[in-house]
Amino acid sequence: MFKAEIKSETLKGLVNIISTLIDEVKFTITPEGMTLKAVDPAHVAMIELKVGAKAFESYSASETEIGLDLDKVKMVLKLAGQGDLIAMEQDESKGRFVFTIGNITRSMSMVDTSSMSDPKVPQLSLSANAVILVDQLQKGIRAAESISDHIALRADPGFFELSCEGDTDDASLKLKGSDVESLEVPSAVHSLFPLDYFSNLVKAIPAGTKVKVELDSDFPVKLVFGLANGEASVVYFLAPRIESD
Amino acid sequence: MFKAEIKSETLKGLVNIISTLIDEVKFTITPEGMTLKAVDPAHVAMIELKVGAKAFESYSASETEIGLDLDKVKMVLKLAGQGDLIAMEQDESKGRFVFTIGNITRSMSMVDTSSMSDPKVPQLSLSANAVILVDQLQKGIRAAESISDHIALRADPGFFELSCEGDTDDASLKLKGSDVESLEVPSAVHSLFPLDYFSNLVKAIPAGTKVKVELDSDFPVKLVFGLANGEASVVYFLAPRIESD
Amino acid sequence: MFKAEIKSETLKGLVNIISTLIDEVKFTITPEGMTLKAVDPAHVAMIELKVGAKAFESYSASETEIGLDLDKVKMVLKLAGQGDLIAMEQDESKGRFVFTIGNITRSMSMVDTSSMSDPKVPQLSLSANAVILVDQLQKGIRAAESISDHIALRADPGFFELSCEGDTDDASLKLKGSDVESLEVPSAVHSLFPLDYFSNLVKAIPAGTKVKVELDSDFPVKLVFGLANGEASVVYFLAPRIESD
Repeated sequence: MFKAEIKSETLKGLVNIISTLIDEVKFTITPEGMTLKAVDPAHVAMIELKVGAKAFESYSASETEIGLDLDKVKMVLKLAGQGDLIAMEQDESKGRFVFTIGNITRSMSMVDTSSMSDPKVPQLSLSANAVILVDQLQKGIRAAESISDHIALRADPGFFELSCEGDTDDASLKLKGSDVESLEVPSAVHSLFPLDYFSNLVKAIPAGTKVKVELDSDFPVKLVFGLANGEASVVYFLAPRIESD
Repeated sequence: MFKAEIKSETLKGLVNIISTLIDEVKFTITPEGMTLKAVDPAHVAMIELKVGAKAFESYSASETEIGLDLDKVKMVLKLAGQGDLIAMEQDESKGRFVFTIGNITRSMSMVDTSSMSDPKVPQLSLSANAVILVDQLQKGIRAAESISDHIALRADPGFFELSCEGDTDDASLKLKGSDVESLEVPSAVHSLFPLDYFSNLVKAIPAGTKVKVELDSDFPVKLVFGLANGEASVVYFLAPRIESD
Repeated sequence: MFKAEIKSETLKGLVNIISTLIDEVKFTITPEGMTLKAVDPAHVAMIELKVGAKAFESYSASETEIGLDLDKVKMVLKLAGQGDLIAMEQDESKGRFVFTIGNITRSMSMVDTSSMSDPKVPQLSLSANAVILVDQLQKGIRAAESISDHIALRADPGFFELSCEGDTDDASLKLKGSDVESLEVPSAVHSLFPLDYFSNLVKAIPAGTKVKVELDSDFPVKLVFGLANGEASVVYFLAPRIESD
């Protein structure tokens, strides 16, 4: 059983983040909230999302699983105006999921989740971490675009840098002092990542969000941030591209 | 003879409605105003437009016919700013129609109307009618999009409903109480219509317009509404898709 | 040696004008400022641009040449916000040109200028001239679009006219009285020009700019205007299309 109401802005924020990785998703529902663990088809990135019951305006659920096609949920979101409440209800008898926005009712068949297994979230101990406003990361991505398919992240005791090297062109964004919220780097580390994955995720994070970036040399990068006024949390892993010498 | 001035917004509103059906049109001109009757090439929909002389800022005409290509008229409208007056004049000697906007003169050859006959406007007595703000109809269309090629209109003594049924998904907008301006339905009726025709017309109607919807089971739907502060009136018929059992 | 700072808006204005003609450009640098002379690949139009040191926020240079790909410079401009300062520096040792915007560094290889020769600027004495707000020229272009590939410019002792004749349609913008800033026309002249060249340039000129148009019959038209608060000047020549009788 699942029945809840959520602000359209909150649902939109969650869907924007998840849909950078996958279209068909399985939400695991408990009385305390919903969680989602997913990897992209190429197994390059993984997302773990936890949404507490308090992120919803009303929430009532027993343990269940709900499979949804996010492309369809995005169409539902387009029907909602700023500030609209979206009511959601699982109709187990018909295998349908029903959204209600004011006098609109929109129902869709649920996606079969029986073949969707939860990926294992890696336990990594990464030596460096920085807390950075997502707006800075977004600026670094814009500078890197059209130069290379990869972006280098570098953490140094004195700065955090996003950079990109092409055959004829370079771009770099160096963050230090008040450009970073916090910086804990015992010794310099850096890794190279696919720009498209990194860019899709970072652009989907709302402006003003503080993102914790955990980094090590030739390890996945781990991004941690909150959504829905802190009632939802996201952990995102992105595999590095190992540079051959 | 035809010579008139009209506000660019008024002309734009008229052209937007007509061009949902056809590109080349024949206006029948009299000293009292202009009228247009047209069906689309597939004979699925018909429009009857009457524009009184008072919809114009100035108007002087004898009985004549004017054939215009609406795609060209749309380009003229792009030259006009908010609040601009558009002067129009038929140049019979050259077979041209001349628009003047400030210091711009734009003339175009008229379309030959000799082969354009006026369609007969059907006399239908439809049992149910509802007056609905076009914004509600537009909301119903947005909900129906991408679910099916057809939209069902249903009038019930207690409500008016737009709905759409797909293989896996449904959408419905149910209007009742203050959602409708008036509702006269002796007994429940419903018909199915092609979504693209209905959507193109309804989206072209300015927000805030009240539309009278006349409906019966397996009959055309008749939409009646005013434009140009009530100085122009539109009657639109759309043929139903008969459901086979 | 070249090292300078410029407001992003100023650099954007200059790049917009030049890139209507060519993508790879050679700037000739002196301690007093930079100049550029270029023709388009089809030799239909020529531009001569002079940017004084005062157009920059800071400027320090010895005589040199700098070759740049304007498509890349446009990408740099997208990284700058309203009011941002862009620092530029030639790195001769690496053959690189380096832009800095706040904490972003963007370097690009310079284009080889050895094969780029300066075109000769023609010395023409054109009998008629008019000073016209670019907004009027832009309006005339909009009216001419989709009627013909050519636009006629006509200077008369009493008016200046942009017009276009198609097979079935005509458009004309007639400027007189307060529509023109000044008008010196001993006797009527007119020439025909390719609309795409004229349109691309005129649309790139900022609204509110006064443009001096020098015209004669079957001669190139010469457009003269200032940019960067008058600290930069542009002379543009466009070859006529000679009408055959």
